[in-house]
Amino acid sequence: MSKFSMIQIINKKRDGGTLSAEEIRWFVEEYTKGNVPDYQASALLMAIYFQKMDREETFELTRAMRDSGEVMDLSAIGGIKVDKHSTGGVGDKTTLIVAPLAAACGVPVAKMSGRGLGFTGGTIDKLESIPGFKTSMESRAFVDQVNAIGIAVAGQTAQIAAADKKLYALRDVTATVDNMSLIASSIMSKKLASGSDAIVLDVKCGSGAFMEEQEKAEELAQMMVDIGKDDGKTVIAVLTDMSQPLGRAVGNSLEVIEAIDTLKGKGPLDISHLSLELAAWMVLAAGKASDFEEAKAMVTDALLSGKALEKFKEFVAAQGGDPAVAENYGMFPESAFCQEIYAGATGYVTRVDARIIGKASQLSGAGREKKEDSVDPAAGIYLYKKVGDPIRGGALLARVFGNDDDKVYQAAEEAKKAFTISKEEPAEKPVLVKKVIR
Amino acid sequence: MSKFSMIQIINKKRDGGTLSAEEIRWFVEEYTKGNVPDYQASALLMAIYFQKMDREETFELTRAMRDSGEVMDLSAIGGIKVDKHSTGGVGDKTTLIVAPLAAACGVPVAKMSGRGLGFTGGTIDKLESIPGFKTSMESRAFVDQVNAIGIAVAGQTAQIAAADKKLYALRDVTATVDNMSLIASSIMSKKLASGSDAIVLDVKCGSGAFMEEQEKAEELAQMMVDIGKDDGKTVIAVLTDMSQPLGRAVGNSLEVIEAIDTLKGKGPLDISHLSLELAAWMVLAAGKASDFEEAKAMVTDALLSGKALEKFKEFVAAQGGDPAVAENYGMFPESAFCQEIYAGATGYVTRVDARIIGKASQLSGAGREKKEDSVDPAAGIYLYKKVGDPIRGGALLARVFGNDDDKVYQAAEEAKKAFTISKEEPAEKPVLVKKVIR
Repeated sequence: MSKFSMIQIINKKRDGGTLSAEEIRWFVEEYTKGNVPDYQASALLMAIYFQKMDREETFELTRAMRDSGEVMDLSAIGGIKVDKHSTGGVGDKTTLIVAPLAAACGVPVAKMSGRGLGFTGGTIDKLESIPGFKTSMESRAFVDQVNAIGIAVAGQTAQIAAADKKLYALRDVTATVDNMSLIASSIMSKKLASGSDAIVLDVKCGSGAFMEEQEKAEELAQMMVDIGKDDGKTVIAVLTDMSQPLGRAVGNSLEVIEAIDTLKGKGPLDISHLSLELAAWMVLAAGKASDFEEAKAMVTDALLSGKALEKFKEFVAAQGGDPAVAENYGMFPESAFCQEIYAGATGYVTRVDARIIGKASQLSGAGREKKEDSVDPAAGIYLYKKVGDPIRGGALLARVFGNDDDKVYQAAEEAKKAFTISKEEPAEKPVLVKKVIR
Repeated sequence: MSKFSMIQIINKKRDGGTLSAEEIRWFVEEYTKGNVPDYQASALLMAIYFQKMDREETFELTRAMRDSGEVMDLSAIGGIKVDKHSTGGVGDKTTLIVAPLAAACGVPVAKMSGRGLGFTGGTIDKLESIPGFKTSMESRAFVDQVNAIGIAVAGQTAQIAAADKKLYALRDVTATVDNMSLIASSIMSKKLASGSDAIVLDVKCGSGAFMEEQEKAEELAQMMVDIGKDDGKTVIAVLTDMSQPLGRAVGNSLEVIEAIDTLKGKGPLDISHLSLELAAWMVLAAGKASDFEEAKAMVTDALLSGKALEKFKEFVAAQGGDPAVAENYGMFPESAFCQEIYAGATGYVTRVDARIIGKASQLSGAGREKKEDSVDPAAGIYLYKKVGDPIRGGALLARVFGNDDDKVYQAAEEAKKAFTISKEEPAEKPVLVKKVIR
């Protein structure tokens, strides 16, 4: 006889009851082992969608998913290890900038990243567009590298939060993704299993983000901070705007190039500003500064002095990549095809819809639709105009790149829809960083 | 590319939308074929549980499930064929009485019955406790028998409403049974596929019924009547009480014996009364009487004259059984063990909980837990006292029968809990027939 009955657990949640810690843990363990079938799990997920989970249930679900796989032990690395996570957006290459910035300030950055589905590849896919770069590492080599140069970024193994991997795939095909507790526990179970002491979360809101409304994004941020604190971690969540893409580059190698430009002090303002902000919070969380102002000054110095760029090259070399890419962008894979998008009217750009640009980027070949798909490192979109820019009819708005002629054409057709041009100058740009929750 | 996306269908219902006839039909067809996996079907069922279905959705779901398997053609049988269905209760052996009663009045009764899970076996299991009785029939033989003697009862084949069979099994293990539209469409899809022209429904309410509250049972009855009418059938629903078991016998052969007693005019009052009522509605629905009073007089005559008992024997013989059982109950299988339950106090019986007696009956071996289980034809419970009966401490309340000593003991322990004895005489018995909806 089994300890609990899955039918009774579904029934309890369906009727608005609160699941006990034992019931949640039993469900997660048995589902991971394959003893609870998908059809019962999806019924429970839909019941959770309607009846919600309270704080304690969400905490326990997170802990149970954390414990469903390998939990990294980073105790062999000295100091306060800091992780950084973004809830995902279009053109978000901040990890590539923030990690060397923080490491240059003495923060040990031991980061596990995913490949991801959707608009572009994940951080791991982006890094792999650097010739020779390796993201698969033994845990011993990973720890040694952080101790030696202060930074390592490795691909997340399937052994991390195994239950989350399985549940996320199920939620994706049963219309049960969109629930605060399920989203928060999915992200945090992986972060808690990754072994860092502190976590800086970049929670996006706006049309290109998972949570369009700021209120919802704030609620999600607060829940993730609470989950982390409950587990004894330092967690800082920064709420940021994702109504238009971050920076100008969307795509794998395109984003690495923009990240390097930013580390050279030549990046777009929005991406430079956000990267300094996030890195400063990491420095503060690691106890390397006594307040945020001091931390901000430290990361700004690391950027302007070129120390962060040096750290990036050191990091690339340590993981088998050729650091010469930082000086010679021609070493990145190049695309065979390009389509240009021109403005049909004179006026001001009032909208560059992040979600549509993201979808176009995926169409160009930069993102995966199914997890078995590969990404085209050279594909993507470069934006020449962003919200607030004045333009004349016929001006170049964007270029779409890729290695499949048809796909590039389709992506350009889609990307056109992202732009709105109006006679009137738009109101002041929304502030990028909306709020900090800690 | 598929015509519809299952994720979008789940999403639409989850968000409170109304599914189109095409979406419902696509889902039912693809699920039956195995192209929609169980985990998506269960997520949709849970979304339906929360967001409900409207009348049109429920009608279409019923029609789609009816068409998912074989639809019986009974046109070779003359007259208005009448079916009868009970939503299920404890000690409900009315089909065994009502079918010969109606047939004796010239109503063609061509009935498909199930085996059923739960408290006791279904009508088919009960009939099979008669030595030699066959319930598996070719459709040609089935039609011929109805034309020859006016009555046939056969086991329901898997080909009838195939989608319902699959969906019901899924609902059972995902806590999605309890929804008005799903219950009504499940019952009615099978009835519509069974080919009769008119249907008399016995909808139970009270502790032993699926719907405990009369209001809910009325709603269900109304919905089933509406579904049938929408399909051009004559449907009459009779709302009846199921707070204590019907009659005194609960179990397979025990119930057949009580049914025969009732056909001899010696049955318990409640079961006799209900059987005459249901049979009269069948006679009226078949157009054999001009009003209910006339129909009631006809079936009462069929009972008192012995014509219904003769019809029963004719029916048993036609399906391979030995009609001598009607005179010699010793021909039924006998149980090896018996436990008696005695009253612990003097006073009045104020409660004989139908659900608990049902559970005890199942424990004794009379009902199945899983569909692979077999039933013990001799197992069950005989009630010597029912609500309103005055008793003295030490009086015999019930006997529990079966062929497994341990199970009989456990069943008796359970059955004890069904009785409440109080000093005060209970208020008048609730009226058995609460309402008729047509």
